[in-house]
Amino acid sequence: MSLLIRGATVITHDESYRADVLCAGGLIRAIGTDLDIPAGTEILDGSGQYLMPGGIDPHTHMQLPFMGTVASEDFFSGTAAGLAGGTTSIIDFVIPNPQQSLMEAFHQWRGWAEKSASDYGFHVAITWWSDQVREEMAELVSDHGINSFKHFMAYKNAIMAADDTLVASFERCLELGAVPTVHAENGELVYHLQRKLMAQGITGPEAHPLSRPSQVEGEAASRAIRIAETIGTPLYLVHVSTKEALDEITYARGKGQAVYGEVLAGHLLLDDSVYQHPDWQTAAGYVMSPPFRPRGHQEALWHGLQSGNLHTTATDHCCFCAEQKAAGRDDFSKIPNGTAGIEDRMALLWHEGVNTGRLSMQEFVALTSTNTAKIFNLYPRKGAVRVGADADLVLWDPEGTRTISAKTHHQKVDFNIFEGKTVRGVPSHTISQGKLVWADGDLRAERGAGRYVERPAYPSVFEQLSKRAERSRPVAVKRAPL
Amino acid sequence: MSLLIRGATVITHDESYRADVLCAGGLIRAIGTDLDIPAGTEILDGSGQYLMPGGIDPHTHMQLPFMGTVASEDFFSGTAAGLAGGTTSIIDFVIPNPQQSLMEAFHQWRGWAEKSASDYGFHVAITWWSDQVREEMAELVSDHGINSFKHFMAYKNAIMAADDTLVASFERCLELGAVPTVHAENGELVYHLQRKLMAQGITGPEAHPLSRPSQVEGEAASRAIRIAETIGTPLYLVHVSTKEALDEITYARGKGQAVYGEVLAGHLLLDDSVYQHPDWQTAAGYVMSPPFRPRGHQEALWHGLQSGNLHTTATDHCCFCAEQKAAGRDDFSKIPNGTAGIEDRMALLWHEGVNTGRLSMQEFVALTSTNTAKIFNLYPRKGAVRVGADADLVLWDPEGTRTISAKTHHQKVDFNIFEGKTVRGVPSHTISQGKLVWADGDLRAERGAGRYVERPAYPSVFEQLSKRAERSRPVAVKRAPL
Amino acid sequence: MSLLIRGATVITHDESYRADVLCAGGLIRAIGTDLDIPAGTEILDGSGQYLMPGGIDPHTHMQLPFMGTVASEDFFSGTAAGLAGGTTSIIDFVIPNPQQSLMEAFHQWRGWAEKSASDYGFHVAITWWSDQVREEMAELVSDHGINSFKHFMAYKNAIMAADDTLVASFERCLELGAVPTVHAENGELVYHLQRKLMAQGITGPEAHPLSRPSQVEGEAASRAIRIAETIGTPLYLVHVSTKEALDEITYARGKGQAVYGEVLAGHLLLDDSVYQHPDWQTAAGYVMSPPFRPRGHQEALWHGLQSGNLHTTATDHCCFCAEQKAAGRDDFSKIPNGTAGIEDRMALLWHEGVNTGRLSMQEFVALTSTNTAKIFNLYPRKGAVRVGADADLVLWDPEGTRTISAKTHHQKVDFNIFEGKTVRGVPSHTISQGKLVWADGDLRAERGAGRYVERPAYPSVFEQLSKRAERSRPVAVKRAPL
Amino acid sequence: MSLLIRGATVITHDESYRADVLCAGGLIRAIGTDLDIPAGTEILDGSGQYLMPGGIDPHTHMQLPFMGTVASEDFFSGTAAGLAGGTTSIIDFVIPNPQQSLMEAFHQWRGWAEKSASDYGFHVAITWWSDQVREEMAELVSDHGINSFKHFMAYKNAIMAADDTLVASFERCLELGAVPTVHAENGELVYHLQRKLMAQGITGPEAHPLSRPSQVEGEAASRAIRIAETIGTPLYLVHVSTKEALDEITYARGKGQAVYGEVLAGHLLLDDSVYQHPDWQTAAGYVMSPPFRPRGHQEALWHGLQSGNLHTTATDHCCFCAEQKAAGRDDFSKIPNGTAGIEDRMALLWHEGVNTGRLSMQEFVALTSTNTAKIFNLYPRKGAVRVGADADLVLWDPEGTRTISAKTHHQKVDFNIFEGKTVRGVPSHTISQGKLVWADGDLRAERGAGRYVERPAYPSVFEQLSKRAERSRPVAVKRAPL
Repeated sequence: MSLLIRGATVITHDESYRADVLCAGGLIRAIGTDLDIPAGTEILDGSGQYLMPGGIDPHTHMQLPFMGTVASEDFFSGTAAGLAGGTTSIIDFVIPNPQQSLMEAFHQWRGWAEKSASDYGFHVAITWWSDQVREEMAELVSDHGINSFKHFMAYKNAIMAADDTLVASFERCLELGAVPTVHAENGELVYHLQRKLMAQGITGPEAHPLSRPSQVEGEAASRAIRIAETIGTPLYLVHVSTKEALDEITYARGKGQAVYGEVLAGHLLLDDSVYQHPDWQTAAGYVMSPPFRPRGHQEALWHGLQSGNLHTTATDHCCFCAEQKAAGRDDFSKIPNGTAGIEDRMALLWHEGVNTGRLSMQEFVALTSTNTAKIFNLYPRKGAVRVGADADLVLWDPEGTRTISAKTHHQKVDFNIFEGKTVRGVPSHTISQGKLVWADGDLRAERGAGRYVERPAYPSVFEQLSKRAERSRPVAVKRAPL
Repeated sequence: MSLLIRGATVITHDESYRADVLCAGGLIRAIGTDLDIPAGTEILDGSGQYLMPGGIDPHTHMQLPFMGTVASEDFFSGTAAGLAGGTTSIIDFVIPNPQQSLMEAFHQWRGWAEKSASDYGFHVAITWWSDQVREEMAELVSDHGINSFKHFMAYKNAIMAADDTLVASFERCLELGAVPTVHAENGELVYHLQRKLMAQGITGPEAHPLSRPSQVEGEAASRAIRIAETIGTPLYLVHVSTKEALDEITYARGKGQAVYGEVLAGHLLLDDSVYQHPDWQTAAGYVMSPPFRPRGHQEALWHGLQSGNLHTTATDHCCFCAEQKAAGRDDFSKIPNGTAGIEDRMALLWHEGVNTGRLSMQEFVALTSTNTAKIFNLYPRKGAVRVGADADLVLWDPEGTRTISAKTHHQKVDFNIFEGKTVRGVPSHTISQGKLVWADGDLRAERGAGRYVERPAYPSVFEQLSKRAERSRPVAVKRAPL
Repeated sequence: MSLLIRGATVITHDESYRADVLCAGGLIRAIGTDLDIPAGTEILDGSGQYLMPGGIDPHTHMQLPFMGTVASEDFFSGTAAGLAGGTTSIIDFVIPNPQQSLMEAFHQWRGWAEKSASDYGFHVAITWWSDQVREEMAELVSDHGINSFKHFMAYKNAIMAADDTLVASFERCLELGAVPTVHAENGELVYHLQRKLMAQGITGPEAHPLSRPSQVEGEAASRAIRIAETIGTPLYLVHVSTKEALDEITYARGKGQAVYGEVLAGHLLLDDSVYQHPDWQTAAGYVMSPPFRPRGHQEALWHGLQSGNLHTTATDHCCFCAEQKAAGRDDFSKIPNGTAGIEDRMALLWHEGVNTGRLSMQEFVALTSTNTAKIFNLYPRKGAVRVGADADLVLWDPEGTRTISAKTHHQKVDFNIFEGKTVRGVPSHTISQGKLVWADGDLRAERGAGRYVERPAYPSVFEQLSKRAERSRPVAVKRAPL
Repeated sequence: MSLLIRGATVITHDESYRADVLCAGGLIRAIGTDLDIPAGTEILDGSGQYLMPGGIDPHTHMQLPFMGTVASEDFFSGTAAGLAGGTTSIIDFVIPNPQQSLMEAFHQWRGWAEKSASDYGFHVAITWWSDQVREEMAELVSDHGINSFKHFMAYKNAIMAADDTLVASFERCLELGAVPTVHAENGELVYHLQRKLMAQGITGPEAHPLSRPSQVEGEAASRAIRIAETIGTPLYLVHVSTKEALDEITYARGKGQAVYGEVLAGHLLLDDSVYQHPDWQTAAGYVMSPPFRPRGHQEALWHGLQSGNLHTTATDHCCFCAEQKAAGRDDFSKIPNGTAGIEDRMALLWHEGVNTGRLSMQEFVALTSTNTAKIFNLYPRKGAVRVGADADLVLWDPEGTRTISAKTHHQKVDFNIFEGKTVRGVPSHTISQGKLVWADGDLRAERGAGRYVERPAYPSVFEQLSKRAERSRPVAVKRAPL
């Protein structure tokens, strides 16, 4: 079966041109204007629309066991919602319990993910440290296509990684050619503030942002960045939400350090006034970490995307329904942390980014797809419109509109943090592995159609870093014996 | 006639892969591994080497009439030297005298450039202002493929553009979809310091850097950037040489402004100690503006390239021989400003950039070629390895070495500011318009083979800026009559 | 006649202690707890209150001829209003017309000011350049106690000083030991935007801030600072109103440069929403330059005061009544620029600074009085509570309140930009030259009681700068003859 | 016994004037020009000299038990050397072993210090955490005049305080009105690098700076600052040695945070090339933490002093002789960390600061004495020339010279990191408690003459911080029951 998208304007992360694109066997087979079309090829008319690489969401948590419950969105429903939104790949997280074997956890998640409708990969979290962890990291890299490890600097008494673990794991990442990533919030401070707020009788969702002020993220960003600088690894910061963390990234990049930052659609668009909502359930619906931030941070994050100090967009898609959120009704720190967004990310970024002139269309592609593929070594298999690349594409209708609502979205959760927002610019069609899986509102996601995607170690930045390390190799001073 | 480069690793600004590349009719015709090769195709063995887009030098001054003399390097000899160094295109400058018609000057330069061995384009300088200038700018853009205008903020009493000219010209650039560029040095301060130093009896080349301290560049950078911000145009700063100017660019980019910076090979590698040379002639050989800078600026500029706050590399290739330099023997301010470099830029940037791990190979391509093509709207005709692009390529031997010297270089000047430096990584072959013009030391440059390249107006950043302007359009407040 | 203030807590710029203060003959005669009190000494009970140096307003324009009219507040009424607000000295501005003799203008202003109720000094503006100006600057410094010269970088076609004048005048200031000061806005850009907005039909007061966006101030600040850096003078920026200008000051100070910044009460408290007021007269009442700024700048300015990057507070007190403002009813650029504030500055700064914990009481004294005295070489005659100092004092009631209103203020103008604001913390008594001139609401200002205050040249920073200059003195390289 | 210093110019942190100063009973009794002089008053001729507050060194470690040995300088010899150098007070450190009672350690140190020749106080280190520590902190503050607690972020497996201790202790400091201070280096990274360097066979002193690169300090500075920001305390960073840490301080101060930085004379003057010395003993002599830094940091620190982002100067005086240093001959990490300097600090700062124009004389006084007194609540008892203040003074001969050498210094150690440096500007006489203790080379230090100085809690910054906290007090949202 082959598919021809005809008449669209192809947009990549650095180009824009008119061409037809032929897909077959799951791959892009030809790009041009007078292509030979095999008989039986399905034709999709793209005129007046943009054809772009399908989105990659590098930060999702499908069916995550967390805070005493399990995220409501499973790998099938979640990836299907992604396809409806133009996202054709995700990178989810394997999160072992402390003391749990990484391999065991990895296989657990692999099992859960088999039902995925789109391609997927995994980051693996380092939640504890031992020789076994050290060994299993190697096995994951060499045998299972893992090239990134995540570290939570928050969640004390649970999955928080202290400095000794960060140092050991970053060093190990460097040996293995894997990218360390961090959730940057100082867990000690969060823990301290949570207890203090509860003691002061501030128990509702409004306490959530107060327990995680912006400097708590700035601190952890600075710390992770400087540990990475010392070890000599690249570093990727997930969900950068504050000016403080961005300033740390900018400072480090300004000295030539290889640091990457991810930003979530929610942090770009929402502010912390949502936690003042008089309805507890609504306010709780916005509880995620890091929280939405005071006014001013949003514009700073846009500037980060524009200046090239932030590189990817994601969602941290992690769904909990009202009855799950209710677990924290007497104690905000027990509200399951997480919000949805995989279906909405690309349209929101287009509407607020491209329509406003904040971003060019090329930057849109880079920020929703290509940069992620490059950093995590999926490029040009993913993130590219290129002969031989996976035929994961989205056909974008710049004039189409949609009003976001939990009532109509495909995400398996009863709340949408963007409820009521109308966007202009929507995916009219999504193509995954060369097949039409979303066509003008018709979602044709197929359970289990998604493949596990291995990501090779040693993305190219490691070659550079190794040359730099060579230049600064320490040398002993020759001295006469004492 | 067709040419196949076989077995090389193709490096572009964002990829690296093994492929053969077939050129014919001046264009790249095919890229792949099992290409159909026309009979009679010349085969170039690229194994062990890198095939990259030919360099573009966006800043040269061939046979420039300047400071009472004319640069020794003409368009043929200069572009030929460029080909020997892997540079396949230049953008030179048309510099009208104040009161001279822009069109007249343009045709003058077009005539001089007909002998070029490689493709070439022009920026046009705005050295004065009038309605005629305003009109001729439109003619140049619409009829002659000019999309960038240069403004000298230095050279008082000669070609300096004061603020009123900058404001008027930037506004005109915005209307025409052309990119304003600036030589950022405060001409009043330079003039003041030159006179003061002469009065103090400091008349030698050592006075040159003292008359142009780094804040003089920082000032002008800030001013040009803020004028561009106010008008709403993009801005390109030529030869950024100081931390101060870089800081201004970084500050503006950090707020989302479209500002681009160019850096010269010399500013990356040399410092101002050269002006202390006890031999006058040698010291004078380094006189160019802005001057080479105190230690510390060089590393800052490398960091600017790494962080994405500087975008292109160039040479400001402008040659004056010893007898010409001697015009300033009693007054440093009369030493013709200019140094050579077109032949050396790429190898120097590879040696000090790629070999040290400061830059990846992809960044090398971006910084020597692709970014320039994008900013000045030549991409993907130039700066790309892509079917349909101009077959301007360089085959790079990462193990080849060369010791730079005025005795052996092809540049028509008797001095080389990099004299004696040995680089590893050299162009083994250069291809221009699909023809081998440099082959293992054999320079086959052909007089007049180069073509004038038109550059379309409205590079894509203008679309973004126009959306932003729309968002901030002023609105009158409705008020009752007084 | 002598006066004893008994029982108050003395607050200076760096101390706080209980003491009685005895004034006689216009001076402070004794400070302590068991003072010998001459017979007939008037006793003022200060218990529960703070005794501080009287405020110095370094930026006023009494009865200024400007924009075709004359400011409504004269030297008597204005200084009297100052006394009611705790301000016991002003530094006003002599502003010669271009081509006018500085001496002539100086004597003109001296004449106008003879009616002042409090002590006063003058800055002199350099609005043009000639040998005569150069000579008269020396005369003013040596014979008339002028140690600061002001430069307007805005007001093109009127009093704007272009770069050549700035360079010449700053150099002259350095020779004379006088501090150059600047009004930092790029006059070319303001002029351009004024014409553009008028052409777009935006003619009301809402156009005023649009014609002077924040980067226009950032630009001029950067320029003035770098000219001062090049010349080697200190620099004082009047009415810093933007984060951009503050950033430039912070940058320069972070490299050790002697740059000082002044901020107006209005810029700390108001934002540019005032220009959207539906009543033209009200909106016009806020028109001054630089304009009140978008939200965010205010907090930045507070931070500048806290971090020590801004040093003084002032008012730019320059009053125009409704009928005067009406001159710009059809063209916002013709609305006389100016607002009042001399009576309100100290209470506003206390209320928003000290009561909120933004400033300590010591910082309050430094920012309203002592720093100004130091920078302009009046310390410790003014700005100090010290035996031998002028007995200019304010007794502050931290619990007193006042609601600001044009209906009740003593300023001779029909509008108050702080109308309706209630402050806690007010001057209960003001002492000028040892006499009670404001006592619990009773204003006893005396016409002509104020003295002209000479300010010696060469405040101490010049000694430092001269040592620095010595260290970087240029040296000629010894070379064999050519 | 009384003492009159006649004819000198008095320099304070913000003034300069001619006056005689009369001391009696350990205090300054009168300042003026026609003083009544009691019979028998000793007269010291100060003409041509400067009279300033005696230096305060806020960072010394006399007879410290550390790294298996005890510092060679005891409280008598060390304070005597201080007097010879113009320093009349020190603040040393009580450093309990982990698990040791704070009170027990405090009394231990008090005992050791009884032999001091000059006045002294103590900071107390928090090296572990428990309810007992919490209680003893209160006792120290309320009963023993301690108002500052030190935290070592380095020295893992010894006295390092991890984040939980920092958070708990900073919170306690806030309750008690005491200033937390930190040694800012990330102990995990130091530990990691020490082991790595040893494993690489880099065992000499040259490994010392490599094990503590500048970002290790930047990290810890950022962390401590953000913890202090979160808790709402002021913070004092001891021995800031890097641009990175300074940048963090500047960033925080630029947002209005109350952060203070101390810098050591050694870090201002020396760079890390000293560790390359071919003689092991010499190289080891420079081993202290943080180490001397690469070129560039020194100028940054000077800039920090100039811009007001660094506030005090100190020495970290901690002496180890050659035989003690030898303990690390096979392992650099075992070289006792510490260098001398109490005798040299003031002259070095004058020579490199005042003579060069980097600092004014007022800034010199502020940085060597007054600022320390203010931050640690000793002002105006110490750090002031003021009637009623302690008569701790130094008479400074700006033309006197001295060549620093271990052969001639009074410090009890066989090495001087400033060996051979000649300074211009020296203390001709030092007065402690009103007595001449150093007179033109005659050291009259008296064993046990020094007094323990209590420092009251709640320096004034706490009042400000408490108002700020009041403004941001969290409030619960009123909601209907779920």
